[in-house]
Amino acid sequence: MDGEAKEQRNPAWWGRRAWSLLSAVRARAPLVQCITNLVSMDIAANTLLSAGASPAMVHSLREVPDFTPRCDAVYINVGTLSEDWLPSMRAAASAGRPWVLDPVAAAASGFRMEACLELLALRPAVVRGNASEILALAHRSIAASSNFKGADSSHESVDAVEAAKVLSLSSGAVIAVSGAVDFITNGEQVVGVNNGVAMMQKITATGCAVTALIAAFVAVEPSDALVAAACALAIFGLAGEIGMESSKGPATLRMHLIDALYCLDEETVTSRVKIALQS
Amino acid sequence: MDGEAKEQRNPAWWGRRAWSLLSAVRARAPLVQCITNLVSMDIAANTLLSAGASPAMVHSLREVPDFTPRCDAVYINVGTLSEDWLPSMRAAASAGRPWVLDPVAAAASGFRMEACLELLALRPAVVRGNASEILALAHRSIAASSNFKGADSSHESVDAVEAAKVLSLSSGAVIAVSGAVDFITNGEQVVGVNNGVAMMQKITATGCAVTALIAAFVAVEPSDALVAAACALAIFGLAGEIGMESSKGPATLRMHLIDALYCLDEETVTSRVKIALQS
Amino acid sequence: MDGEAKEQRNPAWWGRRAWSLLSAVRARAPLVQCITNLVSMDIAANTLLSAGASPAMVHSLREVPDFTPRCDAVYINVGTLSEDWLPSMRAAASAGRPWVLDPVAAAASGFRMEACLELLALRPAVVRGNASEILALAHRSIAASSNFKGADSSHESVDAVEAAKVLSLSSGAVIAVSGAVDFITNGEQVVGVNNGVAMMQKITATGCAVTALIAAFVAVEPSDALVAAACALAIFGLAGEIGMESSKGPATLRMHLIDALYCLDEETVTSRVKIALQS
Repeated sequence: MDGEAKEQRNPAWWGRRAWSLLSAVRARAPLVQCITNLVSMDIAANTLLSAGASPAMVHSLREVPDFTPRCDAVYINVGTLSEDWLPSMRAAASAGRPWVLDPVAAAASGFRMEACLELLALRPAVVRGNASEILALAHRSIAASSNFKGADSSHESVDAVEAAKVLSLSSGAVIAVSGAVDFITNGEQVVGVNNGVAMMQKITATGCAVTALIAAFVAVEPSDALVAAACALAIFGLAGEIGMESSKGPATLRMHLIDALYCLDEETVTSRVKIALQS
Repeated sequence: MDGEAKEQRNPAWWGRRAWSLLSAVRARAPLVQCITNLVSMDIAANTLLSAGASPAMVHSLREVPDFTPRCDAVYINVGTLSEDWLPSMRAAASAGRPWVLDPVAAAASGFRMEACLELLALRPAVVRGNASEILALAHRSIAASSNFKGADSSHESVDAVEAAKVLSLSSGAVIAVSGAVDFITNGEQVVGVNNGVAMMQKITATGCAVTALIAAFVAVEPSDALVAAACALAIFGLAGEIGMESSKGPATLRMHLIDALYCLDEETVTSRVKIALQS
Repeated sequence: MDGEAKEQRNPAWWGRRAWSLLSAVRARAPLVQCITNLVSMDIAANTLLSAGASPAMVHSLREVPDFTPRCDAVYINVGTLSEDWLPSMRAAASAGRPWVLDPVAAAASGFRMEACLELLALRPAVVRGNASEILALAHRSIAASSNFKGADSSHESVDAVEAAKVLSLSSGAVIAVSGAVDFITNGEQVVGVNNGVAMMQKITATGCAVTALIAAFVAVEPSDALVAAACALAIFGLAGEIGMESSKGPATLRMHLIDALYCLDEETVTSRVKIALQS
């Protein structure tokens, strides 16, 4: 076991890393280009702003050559994919900036699956999806699930861990599987995140929002996407936990989660982030 | 008077039906494809999630053949209509799933009116609009109103009841006219819904959101679109009433309405839903 | 000094003007066509509704000939510009209605800068941007800033006042520069607005929302765009101040701001609006 692997077995190390990365986002305000779905625009932008990043929803192919190279990271999400947006996604993913993919409802159609696989070949730093999405991508199949639920998962995150490892090794991307526990893997190590509350799934586009946050964390820690992804997922989940304390339904939770993200302090982050190396 | 018509004269019957349909949505989580306007994406998705349905904002023509047949219902809304989205609307409406139309601002332009009439010919289960929209559709005219207010109504719902009956008979769709009282008709029966608060009109896309909810109710009760539409309108209006109890403006109301929809219980629904057969 | 200029040196005059214009928006409910970015649709529509106006997000070129002439004002925002939306922007800006431009992130790309300059030549009544956007437009350059932050400003508003005056004289538009203090100029006079709170910058699309509000104010006061713009900025900032009193983060502020805008009364507006003629 080398030094860092040893450190990663210490839960307190993760709390300090999460706080350090959040502080870096707040200090540097990384510019994150988002080519994301139409449902998630508001919550993704507000999540990035509350975390201290600077979101830029820029999707025209005409703007990629001038704009993308000036960004610190790129976030691509296929939730409301259409043929006219795909060329911009390809171009932005190929612009040399670290980038993150959200393969929303990858199994929705052959068109979407092909687009996801094509984007995956453009070497994202991180792919974050729910278990059904990661399983579909790993199997390259839209027929994987007999209980297809669109953007919602019909599998537990733990059921997709092995598929995520295989997908990570074949793609070179860190794969994050969201769920009751989030699992993040680089194909060898698997990290588990135990933050978050179930009601977050009743708010549209929270998955999209946390993937945007992963892009901001990758922007300030491009050399360790595994750590960046795990810390972003934990921070977002922790904001949900704190938000839940004063919420009575999905809409109050949505609001309090964003506020909590904005207000997170060192003591709260270091004591409440729950990240653990699994293997 | 046959048996069901007799039952429908009993207000308590409606309360039980509304609760039964809401429970079915929660239990089955119907997948509802939404091809809706850009303003309403967030509130429509959150309304569906809070009611227990699974929203899918999928609008690409390329995805309709694979995706739409797997959905339990389709929701089409022309609020931000453009030429490139219309083919998807036609295809999704023709895919054999029960579907619901929201003819937002039907009188805004000749292009929009023609699109609405073309979609109407594809046999939606339900059309929900405000009085101005239903009158414009029934008269097939964009010149109907001298006091045109875009997506806002310049007529009372009661003024559109006769037009709604004629439109229902000619189209085969259940027509729902929203307003201070909502009227729903299959061309013969007219049902009135007395839930809701005036301030809901000061929140953008509440009309779009309730039409999405109608689609979820039609998904679990495809054989009786009149009842499904009336119950969805009553449930959404009731959530608005409960939300209003702790709101001081449109933005707090928007939040509390969604929370209230999520939290509705049997006692509240059966005692507070106000649906009555008018004729 | 003529009579009006003298009056404009009296702070109380501005409070009365702001209240008078807000009251006119509430009374007349001007129909405002918005061709705006995908992020801002919800907050811009809700801002207009809360102020009493009637928003219409209509962006298809096919609808402009029928629809735009029936509107009281037009609002155009390039935040998520794409080639397919630009022709509609041109057409709506040329339809003879008073219109307002928001040149979001004008320096993001050559494509965007050219589009902004082209739209500027179509004589908007008002252009509202942050300091970086106004400086970029005035210099007709995307290279102006070495510290480019996308839609966020990397300059103080005061640094763009001289550029705004030059841009106003060359374009014929009133130019509004948002910031800690907002500056509004017709090339000769400069008006300062001292309402608002810093946290509003942590809510996505508040700039877009206030530009939409300016369009509603211009709709009821088309003959004095300088006054309309200053009053709209002050009213929106004041709503933010009141909202801040019960907020603990950007998401609660977003909600309370909209509620406060809806609830503003004469006493509050006349006593708390802070507008001053600078020169």
